[in-house]
Amino acid sequence: MKKSKHIVILGAGFGGYEAYKALPQWIHKEHTVTVIDKKNHFLFTPLLPEVAGSSLDQHSIVAPLRDILHKDTRFINKKVVKVNTDTQIVSLEGEDIEYDYLISALGAETFFYGTPGAEEHCLVLKHLEDAVAIRNICIDVFEQASQIESKEERAQLLSFMVVGAGPTGAELAGEMGELLFNTLLKQHPRITRDEVSLHIVNGGPRILQMFDESLSAYAQKSLEQNHIRISNNVRINEVQEGKAITAEGEALTAYTIIWTAGVSAIDLTCECGSFEKERGRIFTKRTLQAKNNDNVFVVGDMALFPTEDGRGLPMTAQVAHQQGECAGNNLVALMRGKELKEFTYKEKGLLASLGSFDAIGQVNGFKVKGVFAWLVWRSVYWILFGFWRKRIAILGEWIRNLFVPRDTSRL
Amino acid sequence: MKKSKHIVILGAGFGGYEAYKALPQWIHKEHTVTVIDKKNHFLFTPLLPEVAGSSLDQHSIVAPLRDILHKDTRFINKKVVKVNTDTQIVSLEGEDIEYDYLISALGAETFFYGTPGAEEHCLVLKHLEDAVAIRNICIDVFEQASQIESKEERAQLLSFMVVGAGPTGAELAGEMGELLFNTLLKQHPRITRDEVSLHIVNGGPRILQMFDESLSAYAQKSLEQNHIRISNNVRINEVQEGKAITAEGEALTAYTIIWTAGVSAIDLTCECGSFEKERGRIFTKRTLQAKNNDNVFVVGDMALFPTEDGRGLPMTAQVAHQQGECAGNNLVALMRGKELKEFTYKEKGLLASLGSFDAIGQVNGFKVKGVFAWLVWRSVYWILFGFWRKRIAILGEWIRNLFVPRDTSRL
Repeated sequence: MKKSKHIVILGAGFGGYEAYKALPQWIHKEHTVTVIDKKNHFLFTPLLPEVAGSSLDQHSIVAPLRDILHKDTRFINKKVVKVNTDTQIVSLEGEDIEYDYLISALGAETFFYGTPGAEEHCLVLKHLEDAVAIRNICIDVFEQASQIESKEERAQLLSFMVVGAGPTGAELAGEMGELLFNTLLKQHPRITRDEVSLHIVNGGPRILQMFDESLSAYAQKSLEQNHIRISNNVRINEVQEGKAITAEGEALTAYTIIWTAGVSAIDLTCECGSFEKERGRIFTKRTLQAKNNDNVFVVGDMALFPTEDGRGLPMTAQVAHQQGECAGNNLVALMRGKELKEFTYKEKGLLASLGSFDAIGQVNGFKVKGVFAWLVWRSVYWILFGFWRKRIAILGEWIRNLFVPRDTSRL
Repeated sequence: MKKSKHIVILGAGFGGYEAYKALPQWIHKEHTVTVIDKKNHFLFTPLLPEVAGSSLDQHSIVAPLRDILHKDTRFINKKVVKVNTDTQIVSLEGEDIEYDYLISALGAETFFYGTPGAEEHCLVLKHLEDAVAIRNICIDVFEQASQIESKEERAQLLSFMVVGAGPTGAELAGEMGELLFNTLLKQHPRITRDEVSLHIVNGGPRILQMFDESLSAYAQKSLEQNHIRISNNVRINEVQEGKAITAEGEALTAYTIIWTAGVSAIDLTCECGSFEKERGRIFTKRTLQAKNNDNVFVVGDMALFPTEDGRGLPMTAQVAHQQGECAGNNLVALMRGKELKEFTYKEKGLLASLGSFDAIGQVNGFKVKGVFAWLVWRSVYWILFGFWRKRIAILGEWIRNLFVPRDTSRL
């Protein structure tokens, strides 16, 4: 009989969870699988903007890991501190775990490019609590502004800025626009529309740059029609309390600033130094094995996959999802002594919601926009979040939103 | 034309909100109504234990006040600091409000009877965030215990105590029992039933003392069958980290201690001293007007209504609800120069849920228990929470709970 091996998966996000799902039943029977995550749930990140905009309840976009993991899997709800690839040990807070095979999929964190004051003064949108915090601050500042006599002071308090216009920034702005300009504005008779401002500040020449130029233009127009101001080609050099300073030295004021302009891979501390890394991302082979470490697979945001331009694949859920599945299958092949497959990324299409029954999407050059794209967006994400109890909850809440205003109970 | 008057309602709980609802349309048209609450939502407190036990989501038991108040009502989301009945001014943080008529319904807070260490070391169950905190700690200690080798240390971490066995304490224990002994225990294969303990410590001779003796006995047996230990006639004299010291000097250990043993009325600071108070409660006339202040009504937990024993009415949602309606009607009568009605409390019955399809109830000496009482309990509270969007959510979640385990995603 073969000796039982220990497979350790770091992170149960899109990459780690897909890798886990790719493990067949006999692996769980003959070997030991351990999943480590600092959260105790799987977070469906594409719907975070909907929680921030109070379209969905926070419960609805998470699934408890212990409900969805195999009964023989050990789950450890701790933060990963470091890894030693020589001794094959992962160190957690207060615990060391030996592994035979490792899948590293810890994802990424918000990246501020060293911008002074940004981390201190900006909210971000990466975790569930970030979304709740954004929702709460929108509700709070309206309540505060409602008690203020001066129109100028109200407008100052009701100024919001989203830095960055990738999918996270654009979708967040769309959702926040709904909450601010529809729900909250209607609830506060004293506040007028001109006192509320939401400003997207984008370093690039156009928003949602990964989309076709015509779709970017459509998205910009759509968001602007919903009272969202967009400034392209504006880089933020510094953030202070209540304002962002541009590269030109202009001070853009906003009481609430949310930074979505960058992500950087979780930089896994490696004691032995055998990982080759660049900006925290670990160089992988085409099989998703870490360079010099055949028993370590790296997937998603953490992986610097060999692409032609050397910059790796985009740090998106879609890449992590596909790489996770491939890494899981390759791990099984490796354990059975079979040949490993090279990973090839197949972009299945891009979708971005713009709030209020509007979205853009493109699949193989085929472009969609408007209500149809919005329905596609909702359907695709609804199906992708593969937990029925949550699908039912989300569907219920989306239907609810057709009839009643968004819930503004502060939590 | 009559001069327009300013009606100010302090607190939008059961008492304040019912008083508000009793105001007819012409009041809103001819006069100004202001509602002040430190929360921006109405909290349906009877279902707090269900949120703590993860049977209901926290969104489901709150309703945003701005959705349910009249469009001409001014809502102020601030804490009340003090009141001056001579100048007729309510002071909030950073704002003074003049009133012509006042309805004071700020409710109560958890009361520790001066027990040393209790406030510092105990959780409570009074606000929405308390329920979420209890839910989170149950989930967290199971995750932590799952990584501990020593059975003794696990058992130490997994020990819970509820101090007090009124409706809050008993219902909380019932709900926590479901979460701990059913959902979480099943999710953590390493933890065995004997390592988890939930202990109700009750100062009185029997739990749920307001019920008939036979129902108390039934409730105790039911909770004990669900692995909950109950100690009656045990008073806690001191709380230290991880233990409660009884009047006999015995140390009862529990990693998590939740104090539900008492409430005291919010003690409204009165600058002029014209309120007569006892233990924070304001003496009222039979019309619910404050003694010496005919234009001030006091309802619910804050009101010391003249009863035969001089101890006032029970501090329950039911009393607050009925008094609120009466105070609202009496305020209208006062403004129209009509005769005010004396308040009489009609106890409509008592109900307490015990978790797992079990409850007790009594109406005019008629007693119910078991599944039937549980269905009555659910129906009554479902109807009492008068917001359709929340009723639908709650019904959906209750149905969901029949098919899937309680959600243990840490929030």
